[in-house]
Amino acid sequence: MKDFGKITLAHGAGGDMSGELIRSVFMQAFGDENVQGSSDSAILEPGRGKMAFTTDSYVVQPLFFPGGDIGKLAVAGTINDLSVSGAIPLYLSFSVIIEEGFSISDLSKIAESAGETARSAGVQIVTGDTKVVEKGSCDGLFINTSGVGFIEEGLAGISTASRVKPGDSILVNGTIGDHETALLCSRKDIPVSSQIISDCAPLNSLIRELIGSCPSIAFMRDATRGGIATVLCELNELCGRGIEIKEDAIPMKEEVSGISGIFGYDPLFMANEGKVIFVVPKEDTESALGLLRKHPMGKEAAVIGRITQDNPDRTILKTRAGGSHILHRLSGMQLPRIC
Amino acid sequence: MKDFGKITLAHGAGGDMSGELIRSVFMQAFGDENVQGSSDSAILEPGRGKMAFTTDSYVVQPLFFPGGDIGKLAVAGTINDLSVSGAIPLYLSFSVIIEEGFSISDLSKIAESAGETARSAGVQIVTGDTKVVEKGSCDGLFINTSGVGFIEEGLAGISTASRVKPGDSILVNGTIGDHETALLCSRKDIPVSSQIISDCAPLNSLIRELIGSCPSIAFMRDATRGGIATVLCELNELCGRGIEIKEDAIPMKEEVSGISGIFGYDPLFMANEGKVIFVVPKEDTESALGLLRKHPMGKEAAVIGRITQDNPDRTILKTRAGGSHILHRLSGMQLPRIC
Repeated sequence: MKDFGKITLAHGAGGDMSGELIRSVFMQAFGDENVQGSSDSAILEPGRGKMAFTTDSYVVQPLFFPGGDIGKLAVAGTINDLSVSGAIPLYLSFSVIIEEGFSISDLSKIAESAGETARSAGVQIVTGDTKVVEKGSCDGLFINTSGVGFIEEGLAGISTASRVKPGDSILVNGTIGDHETALLCSRKDIPVSSQIISDCAPLNSLIRELIGSCPSIAFMRDATRGGIATVLCELNELCGRGIEIKEDAIPMKEEVSGISGIFGYDPLFMANEGKVIFVVPKEDTESALGLLRKHPMGKEAAVIGRITQDNPDRTILKTRAGGSHILHRLSGMQLPRIC
Repeated sequence: MKDFGKITLAHGAGGDMSGELIRSVFMQAFGDENVQGSSDSAILEPGRGKMAFTTDSYVVQPLFFPGGDIGKLAVAGTINDLSVSGAIPLYLSFSVIIEEGFSISDLSKIAESAGETARSAGVQIVTGDTKVVEKGSCDGLFINTSGVGFIEEGLAGISTASRVKPGDSILVNGTIGDHETALLCSRKDIPVSSQIISDCAPLNSLIRELIGSCPSIAFMRDATRGGIATVLCELNELCGRGIEIKEDAIPMKEEVSGISGIFGYDPLFMANEGKVIFVVPKEDTESALGLLRKHPMGKEAAVIGRITQDNPDRTILKTRAGGSHILHRLSGMQLPRIC
């Protein structure tokens, strides 16, 4: 069944075929000991402290892309959403909507990728759901992951815009725009170097290490849909402080710059799936930067700007040419279905 | 925007239009004070005891049906999944995948219905996600709700098949097959009496009252996809005890019996969205039945069968005609997309 079959509506009917699909594809990929498949809810030991709860649906196209697939993306994305709130992610749900006729072999690959990503991050997939819709009623496969984590005593509020103050430094843990550029190349069949792969990855260990040695972090946010510009514009609105970033300080691959230019996309607004914006006090900048660069997910970390006393209602980009450009929230859209 | 507009891809791009949609449709419907919209995760006070975590995606067609809509269904269904595990449901996530061109007015109605259902059940919708896919890439609207609840000390394991023993009574809180029949009539444009409406409802208060006065409950499961027959077959496998139900004891509306007969569906396998199978010790049967019947959601509750020492590997239906019929898990499917 795993290798050659196609999904049928009966796989979503809650009968014997649903049970077989759940056992042979999902429970095997996620680890039987985690998924409490025969019950409506997973019964779990909570962590200590405040609880963080988040959800994301994933509709990315194509389902397999350079550097990842929708399963890895769905697990990493929700882990990252919990992590940037200061929580230790513990448990994930995994819910699929599958189009009739979908390859069970591809479904298995995606489930295995999701399971492997969760294991590598030390997070358990504990509950799930499978729905099947008629051919033409969805585009292959959609996944929803929701996640629960816990925030240790003393860390509640670690990532709160109100902690941000003038003089603080703004950091990012590596090159921007990789994920959206990889998808763009994949969709347009652009032959590019193997450099352009999605940065899709769980960042909980990177974030945990930084929190451990730099608990003065004022703000963290993963720069997914809408890119780092959207995160910075939101931060500006939330904290009421000016934001200034320097174009030439922002890590970016040459190919990303080139390809985004050809298609008229601004890399600052392009989606990342493994990049976080950190705001730390000025005096902790060097230690935070050093720590990020030591981690495999932060080798190309950089200080890209600062929080300013001036222009409290503006997010300003200092361009390479020496000009100043005000960043606004994305109006309209860039590439659809990047996550 | 709320009344006349259509959803565009830009509503899902994470920019200003996404923000406006979230504020004007979802946060307004769910209550601004609950949805922590500007953050990646909701930060919450956990309850006491073990944590229950569940997820369900909803792809029901049509989106509006007699007795409910996909918003009510998505909230009630996940509340019920938590409740039958013995948990008090506290928090829900609400994630939508919307087809480009979808009516914003319909989306608002659905969000308001979801918000109203959550409020009526005393449960908060605290986090969400909005994705938009191109016209033709999904069938109108899909919703995922995940939920977190907590199981008070002493109630952990209240709904566990291993507690089930011979002699226990099997109860259901009302007529079966209403939800799937209502959908069937709605899809086939069958004019029926106003009696045939979905039973879609949150059952947390009913279940909480029963647990309060009858903590000896051995097993509870909501009989959704696959109907009461699927629940009973699963219970049989899980507990290794025989199950015997009596056809003439099962509450069913005449119209449900008639319409399912015409279309060749077996009401025992038809989906419910407001019905739970309860297993209680023999000596508590009358008090449990009395309590269920006093509740608005259990007026037509009935004892439909019992757990037997004999035939430990069988779920047997005693028919009206006096025969015995072995129930098997649904092989293949009945009506697709009933939840």
